[in-house]
Amino acid sequence: MPSALILIADGTEEMEFTITYDTLVRAGVTCQSAFVHDDEFVSPVAAKGSRGIRIIPDVYFEPDASGPDKFDALIIPGGAKGAETISKNTSVQALVREYLSKEKLVGMICAGSMAALTSGLPKQPLTSHPSVKTQLESEFSYSEDPVVVSGNLITSRGPGTAFPFAFKLVELLCGTEKRKEVHGPMVFPSGTPW
Amino acid sequence: MPSALILIADGTEEMEFTITYDTLVRAGVTCQSAFVHDDEFVSPVAAKGSRGIRIIPDVYFEPDASGPDKFDALIIPGGAKGAETISKNTSVQALVREYLSKEKLVGMICAGSMAALTSGLPKQPLTSHPSVKTQLESEFSYSEDPVVVSGNLITSRGPGTAFPFAFKLVELLCGTEKRKEVHGPMVFPSGTPW
Ligand SMILES: [Cu+]
Repeated sequence: MPSALILIADGTEEMEFTITYDTLVRAGVTCQSAFVHDDEFVSPVAAKGSRGIRIIPDVYFEPDASGPDKFDALIIPGGAKGAETISKNTSVQALVREYLSKEKLVGMICAGSMAALTSGLPKQPLTSHPSVKTQLESEFSYSEDPVVVSGNLITSRGPGTAFPFAFKLVELLCGTEKRKEVHGPMVFPSGTPW
Repeated sequence: MPSALILIADGTEEMEFTITYDTLVRAGVTCQSAFVHDDEFVSPVAAKGSRGIRIIPDVYFEPDASGPDKFDALIIPGGAKGAETISKNTSVQALVREYLSKEKLVGMICAGSMAALTSGLPKQPLTSHPSVKTQLESEFSYSEDPVVVSGNLITSRGPGTAFPFAFKLVELLCGTEKRKEVHGPMVFPSGTPW
């Protein structure tokens, strides 16, 4: 069974987090959410999302327990403040490089794509929320596609692209049949382009 | 500023809950989530969603503090087990009737539409998740549209229709201009039918 580590912080966009986590669980992916926080000695019970929804993470983020030997995918959601906390964390940056060097998946959505920059990834196709485009476009081959696949780096744009982002991860982790199986019961309106 | 009371229970579909709450907050709607539970003496810290995401509700559900004098909309998300707990709660059923009689909005999505049946609402157009269609189609004018507006009762189908459901609520509570304003920054792929 594939597995995914999904990072969360105060200010994470709760739709991007929830859509990704829930859709992966529906596909049979074992998901663990890990709480990234700046203050070493704070023990908050929950991450407060960008719009105030409080989510209890599965674990506190521990770099030693978060490597590509433990999970098949590392996922970084957006939300300006949450993405800032996560992308500035040097242990997260090291993990991003380690997952990619071990040919495991790294997913970044919305402002989460800032982690590609802070982790010093080489120039490659990438997308993000429009609000951080100017910070990324000189260092990457910036695209406005809803989901951009560049080797094992999967990037996406915002809450509105969270479903196609999650389905692309399902497809890569579990195959196209599983993607179809998970898609049906969610009852997307006809004409939905994913 | 319009306000909405969004019910949550163990087993609530966390995408339907989160997409609705977050989108309404983006539109400036004051949202409160209220935890409905069967056991009077249990004090769990969080509602465990249908796919394992634990969400801390804003308040415990108190019928006296939940009326149409306090909120402009009452919203019931799906998730089989969560929707069962909520729709079987007689105080919730009374509130559904009271909101509609006071011409306030009632939103139900997915299995949450079962509350229309348990509350004894008169025959009218309605939709739901396909999994509860057979229980609803003889009592209502069953539709398979993504979002069905019947007076002040707004129903919808599943996680895949949660965005159009939330946008319809924004439109009704805040107007079409606000809907557009909230829609843009979410970065839906072009061709998305809402
Ligand atoms: Cu964002």
